[in-house]
Amino acid sequence: MIYDVIIIGGGPAGVAAGIYASRQRLNALLITKSFGGQMARKAVAIENYPGFEEISGLDLIKKFEKHLRKFTSGQLNKGQIKIELALVSKIKKAGKIFSVLTGKKKEFRSKTILIASGADPRPLEALGEKKFIGKGVSYCTACDAPLYAGKDVAVVGGGNSGFEAALFLAGWARKLYILEYSSKIMAEESIQQKARKTGKIKVITSAALKKVEGKNFVESLVYQDNETKKIVSLKVGGIFVEIGSQPATSFVKGLVDFSEKDEIVIDHKTMQTKTPGLFAAGDVSDVIFKQIVVAAGEGTKALLAVSNYLQKNG
Amino acid sequence: MIYDVIIIGGGPAGVAAGIYASRQRLNALLITKSFGGQMARKAVAIENYPGFEEISGLDLIKKFEKHLRKFTSGQLNKGQIKIELALVSKIKKAGKIFSVLTGKKKEFRSKTILIASGADPRPLEALGEKKFIGKGVSYCTACDAPLYAGKDVAVVGGGNSGFEAALFLAGWARKLYILEYSSKIMAEESIQQKARKTGKIKVITSAALKKVEGKNFVESLVYQDNETKKIVSLKVGGIFVEIGSQPATSFVKGLVDFSEKDEIVIDHKTMQTKTPGLFAAGDVSDVIFKQIVVAAGEGTKALLAVSNYLQKNG
Repeated sequence: MIYDVIIIGGGPAGVAAGIYASRQRLNALLITKSFGGQMARKAVAIENYPGFEEISGLDLIKKFEKHLRKFTSGQLNKGQIKIELALVSKIKKAGKIFSVLTGKKKEFRSKTILIASGADPRPLEALGEKKFIGKGVSYCTACDAPLYAGKDVAVVGGGNSGFEAALFLAGWARKLYILEYSSKIMAEESIQQKARKTGKIKVITSAALKKVEGKNFVESLVYQDNETKKIVSLKVGGIFVEIGSQPATSFVKGLVDFSEKDEIVIDHKTMQTKTPGLFAAGDVSDVIFKQIVVAAGEGTKALLAVSNYLQKNG
Repeated sequence: MIYDVIIIGGGPAGVAAGIYASRQRLNALLITKSFGGQMARKAVAIENYPGFEEISGLDLIKKFEKHLRKFTSGQLNKGQIKIELALVSKIKKAGKIFSVLTGKKKEFRSKTILIASGADPRPLEALGEKKFIGKGVSYCTACDAPLYAGKDVAVVGGGNSGFEAALFLAGWARKLYILEYSSKIMAEESIQQKARKTGKIKVITSAALKKVEGKNFVESLVYQDNETKKIVSLKVGGIFVEIGSQPATSFVKGLVDFSEKDEIVIDHKTMQTKTPGLFAAGDVSDVIFKQIVVAAGEGTKALLAVSNYLQKNG
């Protein structure tokens, strides 16, 4: 069995591509470990996906997944798409056919591939970080904020997402620190204002996180001041990491070029990578702007490009 | 008064850009003669805008406009955008500043421009066509179908949109003709099947429409068979034109390059035209795929590119 297209990813780009694959009546498979991508990490309401004035990340994910599943195998006579819940471990190409291997050692074959696997939170790479994941170190404010009620908490990262996380955490935490590596805060002025108004967020710039400490659970962090070189210890019961994301692309090495941010380089008009039949869209690609509606649009463009490719090479 | 950005157009690209302009706290103006763009012409339900499994074009337009108006001047302290209901007649650039003239002879000035004016239905350019607009010649199935109850009606154009129009009209009309200029039908097989099932749609290929005839209202059309060269007259009470669209770009000549389809040529990564500070997005641009969610994504990308441009040049 050879699919027309295998879509990898269940965020906005993958779901939009899946909807269009069905409507194009392609024989399609979508592989993802879960639905929603980075929307699942959104702590504050989404107000910029056109059509929904205000909606939680989880509610929008549900709507996306339900929309996609309307077109799953056999349910409607409008095209069909199969869904495989798994992590992709490797993509290979032999002749004109791609094969996709999953973590569960299954293999799927296809004429084309659309990679829409998004990006994962970037880790700090500080001593002790890994040991305390789930024990005070979190990459998901939306998931974990309530666990920190009444505690002192640090957010690492002084961009918009760091400030958003801190504002959300302010509903639970007693006191908040925002640690920013550079000497200047990059978050928008409007959101910095909001942070000041809470009266409980302290911003520390030029702070290089060195170590996470504790017994069973995080009890403190250690940072170095980049200017004075002083080592400072800060008592905190939790650390939220908001220093950006890294594209999920390791499974496709050799078939594509990567940007300096490890994004898959695409032709932005045709959505093609350097390997014929291999397309990419959304946060995993080097599209400049990483937004839900952008990813949905890019996923749609890529799927329609797949459809054109199949007509010519199919 | 010089705006940060003037967005031209009220379809999905313009509305998405407007929402993001407010959230970026830009001093923004959106000029459009109406909201919705080509969504207003959609006769069949929209099933491919992710998040809405099935929604009418008019309902989706209402949601888009309401979402945008949430951010109009002063209503919320989240940024603001002004809306001017008008048609743009000319864009000029003097030094670094653009000026935009409207049909009502008003002039607005801005540091940047985002053109998202979409595309209009392409006319037939047949004799009598203009005379009978609104009197039997229609470019909007969604608007006018009920007026043709019990009549024999022709749809000109044998692509997907022609077949979609015919299927929709089948709910009212007695008999339908689809006239296609080329010798081959380009619509998807699935939609051709549906048309056959109605039992009242007749497809005529190689038909070059020459003339629209009648007294006060359309009574017949005349076409030439491209193969036999025979002239044929067909009694119809209405003609729906579905032969594609043309971008609304005449007001920007001189500042941009055009594709062979008269679309504005952009750099698909940066959304820039050849004039610094002038951006374009959606159906008016040479983006290959013209879809609602694509336009919304492209409008968002272009507005964020505007925002970056203002930071560097502002």
